[in-house]
Amino acid sequence: MGESPLMNATIADWGEHRLLAWLQTFSPAAVVGDDGAVLTPEPGRSLVITTDVLVAGVHFSDATTPPDAVGWRAMAANLSDLAAMGATPWAVTVGLSLPPHTKIAWIEALYGGMQRCLDRYGGAIVGGDVTRSPTPTIAITAFGQVAPAQVLRRREARVGDAIVVTGYHGSARAGLALLLGEIGRSDEGGNRWIAAHQYPQPRLDVLPELQKLTIGAKIAAMDSSDGLADAVVQLCRASGVGAVIEAAQIPIDPDLMAIIGPEQAGQWALYGGEDFELVLCLRPKVAAQFVEQLGPPAAIIGRITADPEVVIRAGHQTHSLDQAQGFQHFP
Amino acid sequence: MGESPLMNATIADWGEHRLLAWLQTFSPAAVVGDDGAVLTPEPGRSLVITTDVLVAGVHFSDATTPPDAVGWRAMAANLSDLAAMGATPWAVTVGLSLPPHTKIAWIEALYGGMQRCLDRYGGAIVGGDVTRSPTPTIAITAFGQVAPAQVLRRREARVGDAIVVTGYHGSARAGLALLLGEIGRSDEGGNRWIAAHQYPQPRLDVLPELQKLTIGAKIAAMDSSDGLADAVVQLCRASGVGAVIEAAQIPIDPDLMAIIGPEQAGQWALYGGEDFELVLCLRPKVAAQFVEQLGPPAAIIGRITADPEVVIRAGHQTHSLDQAQGFQHFP
Repeated sequence: MGESPLMNATIADWGEHRLLAWLQTFSPAAVVGDDGAVLTPEPGRSLVITTDVLVAGVHFSDATTPPDAVGWRAMAANLSDLAAMGATPWAVTVGLSLPPHTKIAWIEALYGGMQRCLDRYGGAIVGGDVTRSPTPTIAITAFGQVAPAQVLRRREARVGDAIVVTGYHGSARAGLALLLGEIGRSDEGGNRWIAAHQYPQPRLDVLPELQKLTIGAKIAAMDSSDGLADAVVQLCRASGVGAVIEAAQIPIDPDLMAIIGPEQAGQWALYGGEDFELVLCLRPKVAAQFVEQLGPPAAIIGRITADPEVVIRAGHQTHSLDQAQGFQHFP
Repeated sequence: MGESPLMNATIADWGEHRLLAWLQTFSPAAVVGDDGAVLTPEPGRSLVITTDVLVAGVHFSDATTPPDAVGWRAMAANLSDLAAMGATPWAVTVGLSLPPHTKIAWIEALYGGMQRCLDRYGGAIVGGDVTRSPTPTIAITAFGQVAPAQVLRRREARVGDAIVVTGYHGSARAGLALLLGEIGRSDEGGNRWIAAHQYPQPRLDVLPELQKLTIGAKIAAMDSSDGLADAVVQLCRASGVGAVIEAAQIPIDPDLMAIIGPEQAGQWALYGGEDFELVLCLRPKVAAQFVEQLGPPAAIIGRITADPEVVIRAGHQTHSLDQAQGFQHFP
């Protein structure tokens, strides 16, 4: 990056035709050069389609996120939505809006991050658009494939289900706090949390094990990108049920707990957002098997109840979760 | 629109959850409420995927385009890309970025325009995202279905092909000129041209006839959204051929010709853009049949040549088309 003198050029220097031709080199040769990409899904598979829009100053900032990480995160967020539906990544489109003075090197790093994420988890960039805008904006639409019987949905939570999370919560928020200087740098955990914030890992890896344990069963799932609390609330709302969450069971990085204390760590775990873990509702026996297979920090953090409230229990105290307390993009 | 007092509310008043829940009422009930939409394509069909990003101040302006027309045009642009690939609209996602002070009524009108376009041409909004941004931006990804043998591609133009356009060129530019006050309002044509600019019609209607006449043949096609000249240049570049265009054969609304003169009308027809007609390269006999079936203003405007230049011939004069003269989003 930045080694070639060409890369100091801006979009305005290159013009749209050259930029588009160059961006197409990131896509498989077979799908570029037309008004759209042509793809043929595997027979008998359903498609899962998901869209995310990331805006500079709202979802990312040059102060906390290099363009490579912006690209990775943008892609990972979409692949995480596919994972939450049980689907395998297949194809993505990228709609970019950028100021004319944007350096080609910045775009190259952005695409590099997206590409590395796809190389790791599967899928290819099959199309896109690039246009002028005062506000850098990245709109990604991702397509996954899934056997119809293996689709995960929010509305399938049933009373008595155990609520499983696949990993630590609060780490991405801790990484952001470090980058913003809200907490001091420490040797313990710091790099891990920054990585959790900048290069989140969509939990596509857990799908084969899950599918093996749950053949024929309808499973409720969601990712925790908007916060763990929000995920539980959304699952409960979609399923017409409630939940009790045991705060002490929420997996939190012990180093984080040590540095900021359990109170703050619990808040970040519930409301920090962007952890991109899966939140699943499973019959208790299956949940135990699944958590054992994954190993820590995967954990059962609570259970689904008939009472349509979501309650957090911490020791002898309980409080009901305000259903509007999820992450709000419009403050 | 605007009749309900609720519609005077802004995004900031409503908050993200309520806004998303309301936007989901525009989608079929079966596909909403999860991290993604689940769709199952018809067996044996390929998918065509296309993305367009529209930015306020670049692609649309409240001065020339009411939100209903912004929605229609955004959708029509994507459906036109599907038509240019031979595909039938199936599903779309809508990624919206809007300032918090945006009125709900504006969004309702925008979605109303998108929905009317889909009602007319097929397809459903199956997902999306909405987020805060200082710059209103609409990113649409559209999916069409097509039999693999009926895919239209830019790279299939062959020497000797006739170049066919499905309708008038220059009318959308004339509509914009009227709205901007560049030309005076007149009884003749004005409303037609404003409609051509605000509510363009993707030429999905010509596909059945085209498919009937060209069974088993590989056809080059593109839409003229970035200008007729750009479309011919792109088709020639992708196919490694050239073209001669007869300026006098380009269909231009006679009323427009009368008002602004043939010189200006010819410029707008070639470079004005946003006419959303199809430009097709067909064997001469098939081209003649196709144009006869469609009737005027569909026309043969030139032919594909081995010499890799694109030449415009007007009377005894010819000039070679600068291959970079297409519509540039980054000036």
